[in-house]
Amino acid sequence: MYAIETLPRQVKLKRIALLTSGGDAPGMNAAIRACVRAAHAEGIQVYGVRRGYSGLVADDLRLMSPPSVANILQRGGTILKSDRCEPFRDPAVRAQVAAQLREKGIEALIVIGGDGSLTGAMLLQQETGFPVIGLPGTIDNDVFGTDDTIGFDTAVDTALGAIDRIRDTANSHDRLFLVEVMGRASGYIAAYVGIAGGAEFILPPEQAVDIDQLSAQLRSSQKAGKFSSLIVVAESQQPGRTQDLAAQLSAQGFEPRVCILGHTQRGGAPTGHDRMLASYLGAMAIRYLLAGQSNIMLGVQHDKLLPVPLSSVVHGHKALPAHVLEMAALLQKRSAPPGG
Amino acid sequence: MYAIETLPRQVKLKRIALLTSGGDAPGMNAAIRACVRAAHAEGIQVYGVRRGYSGLVADDLRLMSPPSVANILQRGGTILKSDRCEPFRDPAVRAQVAAQLREKGIEALIVIGGDGSLTGAMLLQQETGFPVIGLPGTIDNDVFGTDDTIGFDTAVDTALGAIDRIRDTANSHDRLFLVEVMGRASGYIAAYVGIAGGAEFILPPEQAVDIDQLSAQLRSSQKAGKFSSLIVVAESQQPGRTQDLAAQLSAQGFEPRVCILGHTQRGGAPTGHDRMLASYLGAMAIRYLLAGQSNIMLGVQHDKLLPVPLSSVVHGHKALPAHVLEMAALLQKRSAPPGG
Amino acid sequence: MYAIETLPRQVKLKRIALLTSGGDAPGMNAAIRACVRAAHAEGIQVYGVRRGYSGLVADDLRLMSPPSVANILQRGGTILKSDRCEPFRDPAVRAQVAAQLREKGIEALIVIGGDGSLTGAMLLQQETGFPVIGLPGTIDNDVFGTDDTIGFDTAVDTALGAIDRIRDTANSHDRLFLVEVMGRASGYIAAYVGIAGGAEFILPPEQAVDIDQLSAQLRSSQKAGKFSSLIVVAESQQPGRTQDLAAQLSAQGFEPRVCILGHTQRGGAPTGHDRMLASYLGAMAIRYLLAGQSNIMLGVQHDKLLPVPLSSVVHGHKALPAHVLEMAALLQKRSAPPGG
Amino acid sequence: MYAIETLPRQVKLKRIALLTSGGDAPGMNAAIRACVRAAHAEGIQVYGVRRGYSGLVADDLRLMSPPSVANILQRGGTILKSDRCEPFRDPAVRAQVAAQLREKGIEALIVIGGDGSLTGAMLLQQETGFPVIGLPGTIDNDVFGTDDTIGFDTAVDTALGAIDRIRDTANSHDRLFLVEVMGRASGYIAAYVGIAGGAEFILPPEQAVDIDQLSAQLRSSQKAGKFSSLIVVAESQQPGRTQDLAAQLSAQGFEPRVCILGHTQRGGAPTGHDRMLASYLGAMAIRYLLAGQSNIMLGVQHDKLLPVPLSSVVHGHKALPAHVLEMAALLQKRSAPPGG
Repeated sequence: MYAIETLPRQVKLKRIALLTSGGDAPGMNAAIRACVRAAHAEGIQVYGVRRGYSGLVADDLRLMSPPSVANILQRGGTILKSDRCEPFRDPAVRAQVAAQLREKGIEALIVIGGDGSLTGAMLLQQETGFPVIGLPGTIDNDVFGTDDTIGFDTAVDTALGAIDRIRDTANSHDRLFLVEVMGRASGYIAAYVGIAGGAEFILPPEQAVDIDQLSAQLRSSQKAGKFSSLIVVAESQQPGRTQDLAAQLSAQGFEPRVCILGHTQRGGAPTGHDRMLASYLGAMAIRYLLAGQSNIMLGVQHDKLLPVPLSSVVHGHKALPAHVLEMAALLQKRSAPPGG
Repeated sequence: MYAIETLPRQVKLKRIALLTSGGDAPGMNAAIRACVRAAHAEGIQVYGVRRGYSGLVADDLRLMSPPSVANILQRGGTILKSDRCEPFRDPAVRAQVAAQLREKGIEALIVIGGDGSLTGAMLLQQETGFPVIGLPGTIDNDVFGTDDTIGFDTAVDTALGAIDRIRDTANSHDRLFLVEVMGRASGYIAAYVGIAGGAEFILPPEQAVDIDQLSAQLRSSQKAGKFSSLIVVAESQQPGRTQDLAAQLSAQGFEPRVCILGHTQRGGAPTGHDRMLASYLGAMAIRYLLAGQSNIMLGVQHDKLLPVPLSSVVHGHKALPAHVLEMAALLQKRSAPPGG
Repeated sequence: MYAIETLPRQVKLKRIALLTSGGDAPGMNAAIRACVRAAHAEGIQVYGVRRGYSGLVADDLRLMSPPSVANILQRGGTILKSDRCEPFRDPAVRAQVAAQLREKGIEALIVIGGDGSLTGAMLLQQETGFPVIGLPGTIDNDVFGTDDTIGFDTAVDTALGAIDRIRDTANSHDRLFLVEVMGRASGYIAAYVGIAGGAEFILPPEQAVDIDQLSAQLRSSQKAGKFSSLIVVAESQQPGRTQDLAAQLSAQGFEPRVCILGHTQRGGAPTGHDRMLASYLGAMAIRYLLAGQSNIMLGVQHDKLLPVPLSSVVHGHKALPAHVLEMAALLQKRSAPPGG
Repeated sequence: MYAIETLPRQVKLKRIALLTSGGDAPGMNAAIRACVRAAHAEGIQVYGVRRGYSGLVADDLRLMSPPSVANILQRGGTILKSDRCEPFRDPAVRAQVAAQLREKGIEALIVIGGDGSLTGAMLLQQETGFPVIGLPGTIDNDVFGTDDTIGFDTAVDTALGAIDRIRDTANSHDRLFLVEVMGRASGYIAAYVGIAGGAEFILPPEQAVDIDQLSAQLRSSQKAGKFSSLIVVAESQQPGRTQDLAAQLSAQGFEPRVCILGHTQRGGAPTGHDRMLASYLGAMAIRYLLAGQSNIMLGVQHDKLLPVPLSSVVHGHKALPAHVLEMAALLQKRSAPPGG
């Protein structure tokens, strides 16, 4: 259960806007609902922007009533739709957007998205002074300044469901499987899915693969009587990493099968954890705005919700702690002689 | 609920063998359990063969007690493991296998698998006279002589789970998705998943794709305001069909995303339907053996379990009825003017 | 895959109405979608009636466009809402309803529901001549004239999910569980769930329970080393059957735990099977109307969709075939000595 | 991702024992696997005790090899089985147990369970000096000294799955549902499930229910056009709380339906979160033992794994923070006029 701060009410607000941006993540709808409900409780109108920054540029906003967010808590995707928006990279466009928002009497903007989306949010406020609060929404959990992001827990569980099924087949056929999970710049999904799925090896994007060492370890597993193996591979910036690996393993005499989980990891009903996280973040965003704060992202650190300056979010880099892969290796280790 | 025949008891049996062969399918364990339990109720010993025909060749058989099949009804995969076995294509090997079985006092063999596995079963009996009964076990539902196969229903539901999740993302981003499902020689999975998943188009393996027509239809959908689309593509004999299609659609100006569901469709807990089918088939196999029948596969036709000569199973070809794709098209049609 | 008939087009239709009635069942939305889409393809307007016969009485109808049924195929419940409607039992009310429909230019009515709902439909047509087609929609699968009903397959799979989880606990604690499933007048859910869930005993509503015999069997299981047992009990007309049983077993020295699955069996995303069935039934209802047929329910018999006179549906009684419980007993039998 | 401490190796260990006790919880198997694997990596033998303290008393222990924990990570329940053991409440029995363990050369005991089980563990060490480490394993999350327990996250997600299905029916029929979740002494499950399930009201066990106020709020919801409502009720020490509430609401003119989720919340494959938590706790238990620590429970506080003296675990009381129910109320509030 998150620890939260009691915040003094410093400003009056009548009207704010809200958007989701970047890759969609399960729980975005729960965050939207929480923003709208918490704002409504304070007498604040919320305008929903359609298709992320694209809708901001195109001035595509609609007033959201509480009934408009009924029955969405448990839905994947985002009812506001999302997009990646090239024009918003232009400062002139951002200036125009701020003017449009002010003209409508809108006093602040909440942005739910990942790294790129939060960069856009930061620039908007830096350049135009328009108040922005960001919420971390991405399945990759690669946002600096927060331990967790909306959608990560669900993506892990979805990938695990696939892994559990693949293991049935791997065991039935004594086969070697390479399973590619999402996470271009970040090994969080790979590490969690690998540990929780009992993968024999985990290959995060941060780490180069020594194919000779991997082959040697697989061979020693086989000698020890273990013929089915599951390797979790994080996708990399360049597509095709897993196929390349499979080709190299084939050249060494293995017969690996490749499964690329891809976009199936994005959707689906959010887990309870992601619904809680998203609900808390959404409701607290309204409280931080009323406390006069902006230019921040609300993050989670050690189970406490707290504000992080957008500039530090955008410039930091979040690395997978070293002990995680050690733990994974430990849980798979079979070599030491027992009771020796 | 399946209709079944009452069968006279014609022969006495003391000992039979049982194997799973080819690609594993959810429900194989339920069939194994039913064979063992129904045999046990008749005082017949069942020897489980490990790794399909490979284990038959290697004489890798173990006596299965009823407790050995406890708690497997709901598990995906096959506890007997499965394999594709090259040596068994050799008549000399089959003759040797029959001799080995007879030497152990084994009087009949039950084979759970797909087309190829049932061909092996037929040849074994034809050439050596050793009694064999086949049960259709494959997710592809491409076995002639039966409307249904063990694992098909589960594979459809698993693929649908993925499709439902992909649709969340497709809707959030107004995107076009190509989703590849299993079924090399057969469009059953594609047709069911396409209809039940509300796909805009279904491309079974039986049918060449007219890319210009597909593009025109996608464009007219977009003009009508429908930007997200989901196309279900059956894998084909040559891998890469879906990527080729994606490349062709990209050349026409679309931005398709590709998802290949692959082996995630194989495993997982079987559905109630597959558990029922597998349990009935397994139990009835024992009854047909006791009625003196063999050289047959037990199939389902219009909800009735019945014996089909293995030779007709092996030489027939099961085609997707034409009306299925018509129905799919009808359920997506949006063009006719209403109330005109 | 259902066999269907090719039907001649005999009548022209401009406008029809559609309602869901009685307990909701997963797949009702898929049937609604199919009716609307298939009607639209023929240029027929569909008016959706809200809350079943209550909405018909209250004249609460709305024109349904194809977009109004987008993205509902995979949703449980019914977007038209459902109800049990006392006033509709009055012939005068039915006469008024027929007049109201005719005044709006509505030429036929499609009713999706169970036994009671189809009785209302039959009476409406018998008394007023207003054309009606019924579709069997109920999780209980207790409608005469059809092997299957919309929602049954999903309810079985949902109950199985619960059973599989309860078994984890039963096994961990060597416990006896009584699990009550739905099905007041019909043992279909109990029989399917019991067989597919590997229940040690199945108690359908049709059958009185001999508590001494049950106790004796449980005791002999325990002597054979089997301490965890799962008994599937169908709810009965009078609530409390399962608690009564538990009390009787406690009096015999057992410590049974009770789980009542209740309404959790009703909702949820429909299985692929139910989506197919509902889609076919919905689309074929339009074709049968255009062929000039009414006063029928569309049912499934041996995998063929076919029309059944409403009067025979309403007056028949659907019983669980005897061999089903025999099969269940066979699959649990552990007593015969093997290889004897 | 949990923060963990680097621990100095202070003692040598050859042989330890491991048991699960109390109500089973998903993830217990993952913890067992982690203990066995991490111990094996250090050359320590692990003896598994069957049926909790009962097996300790009965001297029912077996050596667990790493293969014995293969493929259990994803399984609900506990392969070691669990029990509540009356005799272990007797100090003489505990003294005898310690003697038995020492005789076998066993040097420490790991206990996975809830409050009661950890009390037994504490007494064992206090009275006999036999080193014990506890791991919190219970779906109720009611163990003092830790923010989280093995099984809680899974139980919440399982209950949510049921709630999401019930909501389909509630919406289809405009009905009021009382859904009882587990948690006798603790409102954690109720609070999480209520917030994440969008319940209109949450009734934790800590709080008496003012039926007049509840009725008034329900009535005002209905006046505002909201007819379907879902109330999450925590079971209480005395069974029947939810039925009593239903009776009281019926007396006030409502027609509530009751669903008791019961033991369906216990089993099932653990979530990724619970597999991670259990794996970390299991592996770290070995490290703490090697660091010479005992008489502790390993808990999680603010995402950090740390040791908590068993006596403080046993004597503390864990209360639901007040802000949680405030947050729940906020997310449901519909009354304030927007933009006023």
